[in-house]
Amino acid sequence: MEHPKKNRRSSASSNRPNLWQSRFRKGLDPLALRFSSSLGVDRRLWLEDIEGSLAHLRMLARCRIIPPRDARKISRALGEIKSEFAAGSFPPHAISRDGRFSAEDIHMAIERRLIDKIGDAGGRLHTARSRNDQIALDERLYLRRITHDVLAALRKLQSAFLSKAEVNPDVLLPGYTHLQRAQPVLLAHQLIAYVSMLDRDHERFTDCLKRINRSPLGAGALAGTSFEIDRTMVARELKFKGIITNSMDAVADRDVLIEFVANCALTMTHLSRFAEDLILWSSEEWGFAEIGDAFTTGSSIMPQKKNPDIAELVRGKSGRVYGDLIALLTVMKGLPMTYNRDMQEDKEPLFDAADTLLDSLNVFSAMFPTVKFNPARFEGESDYLLATELADYLVSKGMPFRKAHALVGKIVLECMSKNLFLRELPLSAFRRHSVLFDKSLWRILHLRASLAMKKSAGSTSPKEVKKALRRWKKQLRP
Amino acid sequence: MEHPKKNRRSSASSNRPNLWQSRFRKGLDPLALRFSSSLGVDRRLWLEDIEGSLAHLRMLARCRIIPPRDARKISRALGEIKSEFAAGSFPPHAISRDGRFSAEDIHMAIERRLIDKIGDAGGRLHTARSRNDQIALDERLYLRRITHDVLAALRKLQSAFLSKAEVNPDVLLPGYTHLQRAQPVLLAHQLIAYVSMLDRDHERFTDCLKRINRSPLGAGALAGTSFEIDRTMVARELKFKGIITNSMDAVADRDVLIEFVANCALTMTHLSRFAEDLILWSSEEWGFAEIGDAFTTGSSIMPQKKNPDIAELVRGKSGRVYGDLIALLTVMKGLPMTYNRDMQEDKEPLFDAADTLLDSLNVFSAMFPTVKFNPARFEGESDYLLATELADYLVSKGMPFRKAHALVGKIVLECMSKNLFLRELPLSAFRRHSVLFDKSLWRILHLRASLAMKKSAGSTSPKEVKKALRRWKKQLRP
Amino acid sequence: MEHPKKNRRSSASSNRPNLWQSRFRKGLDPLALRFSSSLGVDRRLWLEDIEGSLAHLRMLARCRIIPPRDARKISRALGEIKSEFAAGSFPPHAISRDGRFSAEDIHMAIERRLIDKIGDAGGRLHTARSRNDQIALDERLYLRRITHDVLAALRKLQSAFLSKAEVNPDVLLPGYTHLQRAQPVLLAHQLIAYVSMLDRDHERFTDCLKRINRSPLGAGALAGTSFEIDRTMVARELKFKGIITNSMDAVADRDVLIEFVANCALTMTHLSRFAEDLILWSSEEWGFAEIGDAFTTGSSIMPQKKNPDIAELVRGKSGRVYGDLIALLTVMKGLPMTYNRDMQEDKEPLFDAADTLLDSLNVFSAMFPTVKFNPARFEGESDYLLATELADYLVSKGMPFRKAHALVGKIVLECMSKNLFLRELPLSAFRRHSVLFDKSLWRILHLRASLAMKKSAGSTSPKEVKKALRRWKKQLRP
Amino acid sequence: MEHPKKNRRSSASSNRPNLWQSRFRKGLDPLALRFSSSLGVDRRLWLEDIEGSLAHLRMLARCRIIPPRDARKISRALGEIKSEFAAGSFPPHAISRDGRFSAEDIHMAIERRLIDKIGDAGGRLHTARSRNDQIALDERLYLRRITHDVLAALRKLQSAFLSKAEVNPDVLLPGYTHLQRAQPVLLAHQLIAYVSMLDRDHERFTDCLKRINRSPLGAGALAGTSFEIDRTMVARELKFKGIITNSMDAVADRDVLIEFVANCALTMTHLSRFAEDLILWSSEEWGFAEIGDAFTTGSSIMPQKKNPDIAELVRGKSGRVYGDLIALLTVMKGLPMTYNRDMQEDKEPLFDAADTLLDSLNVFSAMFPTVKFNPARFEGESDYLLATELADYLVSKGMPFRKAHALVGKIVLECMSKNLFLRELPLSAFRRHSVLFDKSLWRILHLRASLAMKKSAGSTSPKEVKKALRRWKKQLRP
Repeated sequence: MEHPKKNRRSSASSNRPNLWQSRFRKGLDPLALRFSSSLGVDRRLWLEDIEGSLAHLRMLARCRIIPPRDARKISRALGEIKSEFAAGSFPPHAISRDGRFSAEDIHMAIERRLIDKIGDAGGRLHTARSRNDQIALDERLYLRRITHDVLAALRKLQSAFLSKAEVNPDVLLPGYTHLQRAQPVLLAHQLIAYVSMLDRDHERFTDCLKRINRSPLGAGALAGTSFEIDRTMVARELKFKGIITNSMDAVADRDVLIEFVANCALTMTHLSRFAEDLILWSSEEWGFAEIGDAFTTGSSIMPQKKNPDIAELVRGKSGRVYGDLIALLTVMKGLPMTYNRDMQEDKEPLFDAADTLLDSLNVFSAMFPTVKFNPARFEGESDYLLATELADYLVSKGMPFRKAHALVGKIVLECMSKNLFLRELPLSAFRRHSVLFDKSLWRILHLRASLAMKKSAGSTSPKEVKKALRRWKKQLRP
Repeated sequence: MEHPKKNRRSSASSNRPNLWQSRFRKGLDPLALRFSSSLGVDRRLWLEDIEGSLAHLRMLARCRIIPPRDARKISRALGEIKSEFAAGSFPPHAISRDGRFSAEDIHMAIERRLIDKIGDAGGRLHTARSRNDQIALDERLYLRRITHDVLAALRKLQSAFLSKAEVNPDVLLPGYTHLQRAQPVLLAHQLIAYVSMLDRDHERFTDCLKRINRSPLGAGALAGTSFEIDRTMVARELKFKGIITNSMDAVADRDVLIEFVANCALTMTHLSRFAEDLILWSSEEWGFAEIGDAFTTGSSIMPQKKNPDIAELVRGKSGRVYGDLIALLTVMKGLPMTYNRDMQEDKEPLFDAADTLLDSLNVFSAMFPTVKFNPARFEGESDYLLATELADYLVSKGMPFRKAHALVGKIVLECMSKNLFLRELPLSAFRRHSVLFDKSLWRILHLRASLAMKKSAGSTSPKEVKKALRRWKKQLRP
Repeated sequence: MEHPKKNRRSSASSNRPNLWQSRFRKGLDPLALRFSSSLGVDRRLWLEDIEGSLAHLRMLARCRIIPPRDARKISRALGEIKSEFAAGSFPPHAISRDGRFSAEDIHMAIERRLIDKIGDAGGRLHTARSRNDQIALDERLYLRRITHDVLAALRKLQSAFLSKAEVNPDVLLPGYTHLQRAQPVLLAHQLIAYVSMLDRDHERFTDCLKRINRSPLGAGALAGTSFEIDRTMVARELKFKGIITNSMDAVADRDVLIEFVANCALTMTHLSRFAEDLILWSSEEWGFAEIGDAFTTGSSIMPQKKNPDIAELVRGKSGRVYGDLIALLTVMKGLPMTYNRDMQEDKEPLFDAADTLLDSLNVFSAMFPTVKFNPARFEGESDYLLATELADYLVSKGMPFRKAHALVGKIVLECMSKNLFLRELPLSAFRRHSVLFDKSLWRILHLRASLAMKKSAGSTSPKEVKKALRRWKKQLRP
Repeated sequence: MEHPKKNRRSSASSNRPNLWQSRFRKGLDPLALRFSSSLGVDRRLWLEDIEGSLAHLRMLARCRIIPPRDARKISRALGEIKSEFAAGSFPPHAISRDGRFSAEDIHMAIERRLIDKIGDAGGRLHTARSRNDQIALDERLYLRRITHDVLAALRKLQSAFLSKAEVNPDVLLPGYTHLQRAQPVLLAHQLIAYVSMLDRDHERFTDCLKRINRSPLGAGALAGTSFEIDRTMVARELKFKGIITNSMDAVADRDVLIEFVANCALTMTHLSRFAEDLILWSSEEWGFAEIGDAFTTGSSIMPQKKNPDIAELVRGKSGRVYGDLIALLTVMKGLPMTYNRDMQEDKEPLFDAADTLLDSLNVFSAMFPTVKFNPARFEGESDYLLATELADYLVSKGMPFRKAHALVGKIVLECMSKNLFLRELPLSAFRRHSVLFDKSLWRILHLRASLAMKKSAGSTSPKEVKKALRRWKKQLRP
């Protein structure tokens, strides 16, 4: 029978070498260490961690919580550690000196290195701080930096679409609904639709940045600290716009992180759609676009193949970002306050979503300029997609829309049964359907006429498209 | 052998009774109708649909696209239809007259009713409009309305937490990390953490509202229209802040809808955590909270049970909202431009997420005031969670934090092995660990002392908590 | 200050009218009732609930746990209730007599109706049973029935594909990888690929059925019961293959339900791919397939449109089933043992996934026979997709594959630059690349030759396809 | 204006150095290469790739498709490459010789190394094979191997639970529903519930193995091959149970992979629940379990903390596996036949899910034996959870269950209001509620009596639990 409560700790003092384990009699099992160590993942945060520590240090010194001399020593040593990381020379032994404890996470790896360098004074850095507020800080510094990268990458892709629209102002293609030809549109118009979608993504990341840009440092483990620290000073040093006031909130929540990844998922959804269009256009059936050799690959067995791999991969990678989002939401679901170790699982999905989005945006921006469009592809094609113009023609002559719609449907059916295009049907045949038809009809039965006749704001008429190009060019000007 | 292309349509004219099928020879299969009809779902949008039509109508009349007399007739009839819906007397036959076609969606049901009432004139309403921009409009009107409901419900729940904090300013409990007792906190402090989280949710919905509040109407099917409509006037009539300019973008995207549901998912995550805390506190082991009878249920077999069902359901319902989000993202993934019928699947997840969130917020707001806390629950408990204070005590006397942390760890271990609380260990025993300990030690070894000693902004000190209560009270004042 | 523990219950006896609330002083809040009631959802289980009760009753009687006379009365009354449900005449007042408690769930609605009919004797039915094992039983009865429906619907769709393959044995199309033409295949071959995928789905549902087909009844609330019941007899009566032995397991887990929905998600993934192929084939660009009028719809504005709505909806509905799966997994994540009210949220995703899958399978089975293929569509097309044959030709003459692949790549490039098909290049030109080419070359440069030359088992050669058709026909024979 | 179609390829021959690019004029952009290369991920499949190649080679030789001498050379070289990988000496330059093309994937890396070693003869290995069927083969070999690992790890964890049950046969705790104490159960009973759940997981993986265990090799790119290969021989060589017959199916589907990851997600759900129980039991409030030092960690700031990190991480890691599942489903959703490059995104979620599950199972198996339970924890606690026994007592004396349930509810309420346990209420008080109570009552008002009175199969009675322990011990015997 087991008796855990009685004498559950022998008085035998421990000599576990890590930074928190004086209370334990036994070292961490190697399997458990490997399972729980996050160093392989969070070492990406080395710069954020050091910058945060330096700001914390300056505040501790200013508030006279640690002696100036120690502060100077720590500052100098942290500078050295920063150089070591930058140079790739951060000693691995600092990370896994004994193959075990020091490997727990990036915070401990750096603090241990600090103490190795300057001894006990290094132990003062963690005063009035916990890993709980420290990691929350590091994540926000990372999120802020990466959000700026994303914003720039969004702008770059918008510009790539816009440039392609500018050099192809007249290229026409069928606009699709249900993947059926619906009405003619300008390629430039469709590209501006992409630009517009990305612009809302840009808005969302910008909004999220407001919430990212608040400092959690000073929350301590969860309750604040009894040292007279100056949280606002640290925030100012790190160029935050304010602090996450409530200390429990500051260490317990990960909502900005989830919001960021949700934004990534939405942008990937947009990219997956642009990719789909490009894949369709590149098929032999569409024959409308050809991606440059530098962004396509061949087959190991079929020598004729030229595959739109990059577009396919971008489309497929939406899956991993959706997965990252679900991972994060699941991790946080139903967790009691405040910090729980489950939350260590927040970093991989975050990094993966950010990396995937950035890579996808950048490779798309590089690929799209290489795409060549076939301007003549749709010129001589079926004109059934002018049926709406035909109905509007009748409406403009006084027929209610619903009647006009039904009547034109019958004309289309007649053309199909006779294997004729609309423009090939004689006027007399039109007039058998309605006497409202007259010679003016021929003016509208051209794809380009359909474009030109569009009057509404934001429509695909060349005039509106030109206006939109000008507006976006101005707006995207760096 | 089949020959679809040759003579693929007989000239036999169709007489399918629905609004778009003059081009078809055969009616929709009943199974296909049932499968594709969205009326059961989108009839919730009847008000939005009619309001949108009225604004569109006024614009058509003003722009002289339809005759004033017809406009008046349509306006009157739409008013009647609105009353019919409000009164629950919208004739079912208008929805499924022949059991088939009219049942397709809410737009068709209303337009058919309109034509039934006033004949051909009713057919003019759909001029310069498509169901593609119409449904995009209806969804935005719905999103705007429901977002305002959500914002109000968020405020209500914040107030419920705040009120409970105000009447329990002194109640103390252990703050937890890893579900282990970490440091004492005030209940009010934890409740303010919840209030703060919900506040960021409020921010997010407010940000999203900016993007919702733009009118897609006038985009037509995808290309704009050849009628000289005034998109801005419609937008103004419907109190939008602007228009979605690009016509393809306006009908093809659903990003604001996904953003809204992502915000719902995040808020549900927060609620699931509050629910978890409440469930734990209501267990016999915690014995800290008791939910009012009106919000708990019993067992069909165990007469003693009092179950925190509402909290459990709120926690569980996070799952359905995560599911709604995944459903929407999946639907949109990889769709080519512009509208595809897949997008009809956007409404159920949207409605479900909005309903679930609103219900969860409201029932939580109603339940939380009935919760009673046991103020004495943790008063006499173990004081190991003061270990951090003890370490800070040593730091304040000059010991580096890391050393202090290690030394206190050993003291805790000693106490555990002797089955003593920290406050029961004699001073001499403390001094065996460090001579920095003196009688001043006893001042800090009380849970309340720990609270009072906290100095940092946003900490759990009674002073900081009082300040936060005042600030939030002011901020949440309607 | 609140004092929940002291005198937390007044001795004032309650008179709440529902079946578990004698211990409570206050009725359930109407908002809470509406939020927690599952009757709107679980009333679908009325038949399962009654069948389960009848089996439980027969066992109770046989084991002499309730008197024979009462058993007969209950049995008769349950028969009446069954008829009431079947006839749609189950009195609504039995569901919501007082607008409150009786509305909780289907179990309570039926038990209340039973007691209304025969008085106290009805109260004996719930002996040795809890709602916890009762709902677990109902769900398994439902799952078993619906799984049989799914298995039949899978067979039906397989047959629809197979029939279409049989009447189009010679139709040829390009097989695609990366949506680029790769190698010619027979349509029948591609359809058999679909049949094969669905067959593995059939296997998975069959495997799942083994786990579904075990009875949880008799587990009680979680601990079993002190009545000497015969669990095996109940299981036998209900045609289960065995029991879920451990009582805690029986009421706590929902894994078979998740497994079922995961299987639904996988099958929907398959359907989404078949739908995608069909949508592509129906585009004007492919011009290969035309779906029957009865399964396509038109546009409210564009009279010429014929949209593959059913296929699009099937593709889109994959999203909701993925969402259902995530909902269920999230609900169960991290729940402590045993039953938690969160688990009430299991039914809607289950029903939705099952309904969606069944509807999708059935509508696809009805639609597919109406699809007409254009057999001549690809006959005169580019023969670049014979490049692999060309490489294999060289290999068969002794050249290593990699060299042959590279050489043929150059021939394709030459053809492209000269705007020639492979078959239009003179033999001399081929021989400039390799002297291994001779007149026998012309035998392979035909799409049909490529098919005929395939030798491997399961390839697209007419012989292999014929063999596969025979095999599947035999296998799918009812 | 761009003119892609006319002269879209110059005749300038390309000299791109990779294995498929003779048809291209320009090398792959470095950004595109980095984005599309899978070598960093799929190099884990080196062993599977080589084993598959060796089997393919033996078949090619036997079928006289390649000369015996070349076969021997290739075989020897593949053996060397295997040793290089095993020894970690596979030359990096073989992976990225020119920093570009060779880095595409593991198949190309190995084939290039082969050709480096033995020249042109190496180019024969890829005869009658494509990367499409090759990767499908590698994945199935991996899945088969890892499934065996998972099956073993499941057995190990089942044994860990069972052993703990065997050494604690008498420990009693409250069984919970709604996290409220419901009825007493034996700890061993709850542990057997876990064992049972894992057993169904074991069943599921075993079922999945049937579907994994079929060879896709010989499907070629998608259409089969014109070489007279023997697919069954390859399958036999690799110990498969059969082949995936249809060639398009074989390269296009990933369903077994999704099924495997869905099974991982379900098992992680189970683990997350066991973890939750353990975390609760380890809280000070429960005070029931203590995890060994080797599997807990401390705090960087709070010296007294002992955190159940491993259990928390296991619980949290359910999120990443749910994410992996969603990633895979999303990738495959709506893809046209057959292979699309999106499918390259299948490997990371697969590896991550398998790694996470294996690590979680193994670390749980290592941790659980270190858990100590406090056998006395619940002995003197409240006996309200005997209320069901009390009701059953009345039923056994003839009262209908519903009446008994209501009556006992009132007794519990009376006890609560008097702050008495049930066993502290005098008999006379009981008899005021019902004269059916007599002295025999005291026999049942003990927690252990409740256990002993259970009669049903699979209940928590010591007799049934002992029987279950015996049964499982026999079943889990290796």
